Amino acid sequence: MPYDPPARADALLERFQEVRGNSERLAAPLSDEDQMVQSMVEASPTKWNLAHTSWFFETFLLQPYFDAYEACHPAFSVLFNSYYRQVGERHPRGERGMLSRPSGDEVRAYRAHVNAGMQRFLETADHKTVETVTPLVALGLAHEEQHQELLLTDIKHGLYQNPLMPGPYDGPAPCAACGSKPTTGWVRFGGGMGRLGHDGGGFSFDNEGPAHDVYIGAFELARRPVTVAEYIAFIEDGGYRDSALWLSDGWDAAQSGRWDAPLYWRKDGAQWLEYTLFGERPLNPNAPVCHVSHYEADAYAAWTGYRLPTESEWERAAAGLPVEGGFLKNATPDAPRPAPDDEGLLQMFGDVWEWTQSPYTPYPGYRASKDAIGEYNGKFMSNQMVLRGGSCATPEGHIRRTYRNFFQPWTRWQFSGLRLARDV
Amino acid sequence: MPYDPPARADALLERFQEVRGNSERLAAPLSDEDQMVQSMVEASPTKWNLAHTSWFFETFLLQPYFDAYEACHPAFSVLFNSYYRQVGERHPRGERGMLSRPSGDEVRAYRAHVNAGMQRFLETADHKTVETVTPLVALGLAHEEQHQELLLTDIKHGLYQNPLMPGPYDGPAPCAACGSKPTTGWVRFGGGMGRLGHDGGGFSFDNEGPAHDVYIGAFELARRPVTVAEYIAFIEDGGYRDSALWLSDGWDAAQSGRWDAPLYWRKDGAQWLEYTLFGERPLNPNAPVCHVSHYEADAYAAWTGYRLPTESEWERAAAGLPVEGGFLKNATPDAPRPAPDDEGLLQMFGDVWEWTQSPYTPYPGYRASKDAIGEYNGKFMSNQMVLRGGSCATPEGHIRRTYRNFFQPWTRWQFSGLRLARDV
Amino acid sequence: MPYDPPARADALLERFQEVRGNSERLAAPLSDEDQMVQSMVEASPTKWNLAHTSWFFETFLLQPYFDAYEACHPAFSVLFNSYYRQVGERHPRGERGMLSRPSGDEVRAYRAHVNAGMQRFLETADHKTVETVTPLVALGLAHEEQHQELLLTDIKHGLYQNPLMPGPYDGPAPCAACGSKPTTGWVRFGGGMGRLGHDGGGFSFDNEGPAHDVYIGAFELARRPVTVAEYIAFIEDGGYRDSALWLSDGWDAAQSGRWDAPLYWRKDGAQWLEYTLFGERPLNPNAPVCHVSHYEADAYAAWTGYRLPTESEWERAAAGLPVEGGFLKNATPDAPRPAPDDEGLLQMFGDVWEWTQSPYTPYPGYRASKDAIGEYNGKFMSNQMVLRGGSCATPEGHIRRTYRNFFQPWTRWQFSGLRLARDV
Amino acid sequence: MPYDPPARADALLERFQEVRGNSERLAAPLSDEDQMVQSMVEASPTKWNLAHTSWFFETFLLQPYFDAYEACHPAFSVLFNSYYRQVGERHPRGERGMLSRPSGDEVRAYRAHVNAGMQRFLETADHKTVETVTPLVALGLAHEEQHQELLLTDIKHGLYQNPLMPGPYDGPAPCAACGSKPTTGWVRFGGGMGRLGHDGGGFSFDNEGPAHDVYIGAFELARRPVTVAEYIAFIEDGGYRDSALWLSDGWDAAQSGRWDAPLYWRKDGAQWLEYTLFGERPLNPNAPVCHVSHYEADAYAAWTGYRLPTESEWERAAAGLPVEGGFLKNATPDAPRPAPDDEGLLQMFGDVWEWTQSPYTPYPGYRASKDAIGEYNGKFMSNQMVLRGGSCATPEGHIRRTYRNFFQPWTRWQFSGLRLARDV
Repeated sequence: MPYDPPARADALLERFQEVRGNSERLAAPLSDEDQMVQSMVEASPTKWNLAHTSWFFETFLLQPYFDAYEACHPAFSVLFNSYYRQVGERHPRGERGMLSRPSGDEVRAYRAHVNAGMQRFLETADHKTVETVTPLVALGLAHEEQHQELLLTDIKHGLYQNPLMPGPYDGPAPCAACGSKPTTGWVRFGGGMGRLGHDGGGFSFDNEGPAHDVYIGAFELARRPVTVAEYIAFIEDGGYRDSALWLSDGWDAAQSGRWDAPLYWRKDGAQWLEYTLFGERPLNPNAPVCHVSHYEADAYAAWTGYRLPTESEWERAAAGLPVEGGFLKNATPDAPRPAPDDEGLLQMFGDVWEWTQSPYTPYPGYRASKDAIGEYNGKFMSNQMVLRGGSCATPEGHIRRTYRNFFQPWTRWQFSGLRLARDV
Repeated sequence: MPYDPPARADALLERFQEVRGNSERLAAPLSDEDQMVQSMVEASPTKWNLAHTSWFFETFLLQPYFDAYEACHPAFSVLFNSYYRQVGERHPRGERGMLSRPSGDEVRAYRAHVNAGMQRFLETADHKTVETVTPLVALGLAHEEQHQELLLTDIKHGLYQNPLMPGPYDGPAPCAACGSKPTTGWVRFGGGMGRLGHDGGGFSFDNEGPAHDVYIGAFELARRPVTVAEYIAFIEDGGYRDSALWLSDGWDAAQSGRWDAPLYWRKDGAQWLEYTLFGERPLNPNAPVCHVSHYEADAYAAWTGYRLPTESEWERAAAGLPVEGGFLKNATPDAPRPAPDDEGLLQMFGDVWEWTQSPYTPYPGYRASKDAIGEYNGKFMSNQMVLRGGSCATPEGHIRRTYRNFFQPWTRWQFSGLRLARDV
Repeated sequence: MPYDPPARADALLERFQEVRGNSERLAAPLSDEDQMVQSMVEASPTKWNLAHTSWFFETFLLQPYFDAYEACHPAFSVLFNSYYRQVGERHPRGERGMLSRPSGDEVRAYRAHVNAGMQRFLETADHKTVETVTPLVALGLAHEEQHQELLLTDIKHGLYQNPLMPGPYDGPAPCAACGSKPTTGWVRFGGGMGRLGHDGGGFSFDNEGPAHDVYIGAFELARRPVTVAEYIAFIEDGGYRDSALWLSDGWDAAQSGRWDAPLYWRKDGAQWLEYTLFGERPLNPNAPVCHVSHYEADAYAAWTGYRLPTESEWERAAAGLPVEGGFLKNATPDAPRPAPDDEGLLQMFGDVWEWTQSPYTPYPGYRASKDAIGEYNGKFMSNQMVLRGGSCATPEGHIRRTYRNFFQPWTRWQFSGLRLARDV
Repeated sequence: MPYDPPARADALLERFQEVRGNSERLAAPLSDEDQMVQSMVEASPTKWNLAHTSWFFETFLLQPYFDAYEACHPAFSVLFNSYYRQVGERHPRGERGMLSRPSGDEVRAYRAHVNAGMQRFLETADHKTVETVTPLVALGLAHEEQHQELLLTDIKHGLYQNPLMPGPYDGPAPCAACGSKPTTGWVRFGGGMGRLGHDGGGFSFDNEGPAHDVYIGAFELARRPVTVAEYIAFIEDGGYRDSALWLSDGWDAAQSGRWDAPLYWRKDGAQWLEYTLFGERPLNPNAPVCHVSHYEADAYAAWTGYRLPTESEWERAAAGLPVEGGFLKNATPDAPRPAPDDEGLLQMFGDVWEWTQSPYTPYPGYRASKDAIGEYNGKFMSNQMVLRGGSCATPEGHIRRTYRNFFQPWTRWQFSGLRLARDV
């Protein structure tokens, strides 16, 4: 089912229940204790992710539009608010891991309470109300799917702190070199004017628009993302010890973090291992490299003599490609897989997010909306870099060609890799 | 049953099972999620306290003395070691709250595994072995009881971080002014030589000895600890705003911590409330003030014109008093209670630990033992102050007149109060 | 004299001596003790600025190209290297203020030594060598002029830490409202393709090129920068207390820095004062607001409902304007002055740097050179924002229409203001 | 001349001028830039030390007792107050190094102003006033001498930060092994009651009294302090890598500070060098080890199997010894020297301060005076350890047998060494 459901209550409800159910299916293999772990201020406990997405529907849908709704608990509006400053006080972000209460059971009851509220609401709302709230429900579901990806990246980071290195999920069989060695090569794109950004047909986040004209020079894009084997060559060539390859801030981050490989990697004798949601396993040299920061991606590109693409280049290159690939399907976690043995541009969507060289800034003509929900994207347009294309943890159907993900350039806990570009 | 059991296997086992059971009874009202909370580096999760005390018996009793014992899990020796550097690697103290695994169930199984091991061990050990291990078992049980008190103070601090202010325990009925207003007054002690410290008869921690001669001048000790009402007078007189009353380090701690009352206190209109293990409740003006740091105790004493006692004075004054009072009984948490309406020195034992003006230093002739278990006390003899007398969270029977508790002077999360002294 | 001197030794030497002399004239009113102050890691002592610029000529000109040159002191290559990692070890940036030695006299002798070396070098070099080094000398002089501006902004910040608020420079007479109230209004620019960046004719920094085609939509630019009076209205309307106006990172910076006005401002009763290089004085409401961060500039723009310009818009708007305005002339510090009573775009150059909404990124086709001197600009293209137009502390003749200054968005100690833009 | 001058104006003035002159003689070899260096929050610039001691006389003598006195500058009362909170606002301690103004010349003028004021005051005061102020003048001079020692230790630490390692003072000729190898051995002291502390005859600091009775057990004291050669054996035996030797806080300090030798030491090939006020030089193996923290002293003692003395033991042992030794004489800096070839207890006074195992606490009956000058000592009685005996930087005549110096156990920039003790 598409993201932009028709303004029909039954279709909306069906989609709502599907997305909400996926969150719960994702959390199911985790114990209530697992769901409480917070490993850093940027990552939230599973339980918090589950509650916060419910808070969104309660705050922006049920309370304003459904008179019969009664809030689950007065304190939840503080505990599960994230950054919406206009909506009131917030619990400190770094202290979410101390919330043993509400319990897992209570959070699940909170979800059920909100779900039941939404069901009664949509079943009884008149057509005009349904029309009004349809975009809000679509936004809430897109928000929920974003937190499904965060749920996975956050719990991966959380469990990684544990010397036991738990792997709570069932995953693909480990393999040391499955997949054929993917072909290299470049695809050329001519320069010229182009129209980028979302044109407003169907759902999108506000930061994807407005559509606008851009001039892009000719460029070439690598056929597939950089692989593990290629990245190991960078490591072995001393890439982490040569300051000349790095942005100044990147070098400082690498030094203070003592980086010598991507996050989750460990060398055991001659073998490189990675921690995954399925436990620690050997790295597959043919898979795309993952869990690198923008700084590492940029240094790798400098080492090759090429560069990262801009987000304009990426979006132009993706024009016409189907949004298909290694996504999160049926709420079943997966790992980035080797590129298929195929022609043309490969793996533009799915497997790993691709760092671009573009800072996250507003498009020409962008105005954040003034209400609380307008705090969603615009206020983060500072000190972040754009990633494109989705990952193996992005729910299938969640993203678009125009989709802009963004993280600070030093972050590594997302499923983030890179693809090279070069001037013509 | 006394602390220093006879070297008889059955008596030892009975005592072992009683103390171990108390830990579990204390944790029972807490959910597995509650048991995972870590609110600061000095406080540990309940689950960790439960596992660490088992690790102690496994490491210092079962592994060296019971060949048939098989360790529960190889990683536990790292995860649940606290500060015994000679015993090997340790998991970082500040990251204990991220250990969702082992689960609560697994930790309980670990305890059962160790308990069964100890039972088999004691039931099969020959008399000579029992004689050898009796002091170690006594030490392990004393250590376990220390962690029972920490379990309560740590979980109190952990749940206090939660805006819901949970009160998981059943406690005494709240009261705004129960207990009669306790009588003030002083008890006089003449100066002279005295013998202080533990003489080695029965169990004691190494830091309580050796017994030694000390000359103490004449002094007077307040009949009871400072009360909540008295401390409120200090607050209302501007005690937290007058730097002249404070030690220099104390003033800095008070400023940077924005202290304006004891920990857990909150003023709601005209009424002072305190957070307890039973939820938030009105303060009882007649109860001893509690959860003050040494710095606050010292500033309060300066405000009165008196002073804190030395630990020598305290110990001399306690001579001949029965070790009875408001202790933790039957693993049932309680709160500090008003002094009884009685003659002489009151509440020397129980209710609140009493800060002394004595830094925690070795007694003349003290030598820490060289083995790992010798790391127990001696290495902390720096930057800590001695407290005496036990609290409402100290297990009954755990302490002695010579017992030396010690915490850094800025800590407030223990049940710590004060009693005044003055020169004659 | 222009920046891009002909490859003639005499012209080069004349320009060299003029620029070098300006640095010394700027430092002259400061005592040797003043010249040692370092107030934060981002700001350097005057003495260090004077020595580092000499190190540049020694390292990149005299040592590679003038065999007869003998280095002044072996340790200076470490002490006065800034960030050129390829050139070897560096003294920690935050500890420059502890360098009482070399003394002011020794640093002046170092400058004289390098100056004499350059003079002998240029007087004896053959024509081919002069041709080779001309771009390097031009770069060294541009670098020196950048440090002249930093010398002023760093010492201003340094002396401001002193409760005596010294004003070592002679400046314009203080005035409470001199200058006419500048007219508001907008200038419109049509959209279309344009060629931006430096085309390589004459000197420029590498980050100004290559020239490239850009499509820019139609826009309007405010006729003059935002004034002090306008900014006070923002303050008085609660701009510093309304999180909805701020970028998320900006709000955090404002809270943690306790910002409630631009840097150097202080309210004395009803009057706003500012600290200047001439001491503390009343603010002139008609002057451009100065010493605001990008975050404050962005929040101010949000408050008005307009926005900051992109650097492309700014550069297009500046096309055809003479590079004239309130610059640093004859090494005499000045303050930002009110806009003149005139037509069209005013004060595009000089008085205050103008924050744009553009992050500092490489232009299409930009490649940093691989040698040490290539570390100059490219490696800072992360987490910084572009400013345009120069300030009252920018040496006259130093900048161009294509000149890109860049600072982190939270910095306020430069002479940084803003000009509004809006969509058509 | 003794510390406790007769209440006679001429004698007081003579002593005043001598001590004040010594401060200036000590600072004379330092440039005004040197005098501005502040290397850490605990160390002050020379200039500040010079001004603060003048502020003391201005604030506690001239302003209250000499009507004709006019303060030098109103801001100095804030700038040069140290910790006397009752006297008003203070300039932040860690920002003293940014005070380029007042200049060195102005601070010298400030000293001259205060000196002239004191001269006029003492020349004109009536006898009763002289009697009243004599103890205050004595306190001010003792305070000034303390700052003479700090002036040396602070500038040593400050110049050490400079890679040039300046040695501004003329010192004794460097030597690799001068002095005979000092004899080891112990001196025995029987146990019993003793009277310790200052009895009030002549000048002393308040923390030295009141005299009181103490029972001390029998003990032995090493004949001389631990030498450099002995300490090197500790290093070479892995003393800095064996956590079992260290206090827990000490181990943490050693790890976080990356200690592997005393402060100022550096190994150059096989040779140990130390930075001194005369530049870097080879260590003399026969000299007392210096610039160790209490933690290192304690670990060293643990390594030998002995211990540090208590301050009571030290004071008892020093009874009857003349207060003579390697002190600061005629304002000429020196270094710790090897023990003389002699009988009995050696070097109890001078050369290096000796860490004791005694925390700095009030003596029985001690009460800090309530006025500002009473802030002098009592408020620091927390988290500090007592040192005894003075050092090569302590002005001759400054200390007594009862003198208690105190520093935090992790500090190393004082001339601090150790002497072993053992039980009998």
